Amino acid sequence: MQVTTCPERAIMEHVTSRWGVLVLQALSDGSTRRFSDLRRELEIVSEKMLTQTLRTLERDGFVHREVKPVIPPHVEYTLTPLGKGAANHLVALAHWIEANQPEVSQAQQRYDAS
Amino acid sequence: MQVTTCPERAIMEHVTSRWGVLVLQALSDGSTRRFSDLRRELEIVSEKMLTQTLRTLERDGFVHREVKPVIPPHVEYTLTPLGKGAANHLVALAHWIEANQPEVSQAQQRYDAS
Repeated sequence: MQVTTCPERAIMEHVTSRWGVLVLQALSDGSTRRFSDLRRELEIVSEKMLTQTLRTLERDGFVHREVKPVIPPHVEYTLTPLGKGAANHLVALAHWIEANQPEVSQAQQRYDAS
Repeated sequence: MQVTTCPERAIMEHVTSRWGVLVLQALSDGSTRRFSDLRRELEIVSEKMLTQTLRTLERDGFVHREVKPVIPPHVEYTLTPLGKGAANHLVALAHWIEANQPEVSQAQQRYDAS
């Protein structure tokens, strides 16, 4: 098949970015997360990287950002219906990887032994 | 859902790596490519990055590497059945992105205007 071109290639890079993959998966069940929840749960060391990832996903219309007017104020993130559509594909891929991980591990052992 | 953990998380990173995504997509129709074909077609500037990507995918059992004993010798790459399984998910995601690209572009325009 032909390789995806711009702007599709850019969207693909956002969805499959290191942290994009994890954020979309974490929110894929329709749940809501605070920034600090995501950072802890996904073990994202860099606050800046998570901020950039969330901003990119929000700009693409995948993530909804809501500032809660409480004291102290905090920000909550959920997937939009569009984001859910993208996340579903990552979840399917994650399930496939889980099911095929033993076969991949065997291939890695054969490769390392050769 | 729970976030994928090691070694699944590592495999996910290989499959969704910047160049991994493109290599798996390019080979997903069962075709064979030489190293130079892939590099040109995917517009991969760095020879080293493509070498590393192909080596990682070969080690995972996704890509089959064959040295053709011709003069001058060259190397051909194809997907294994396991690699085809992973690639199918990326192709499905690429189709989804293609279909939803207009909606993403609209979201980006709204975001940039706000």
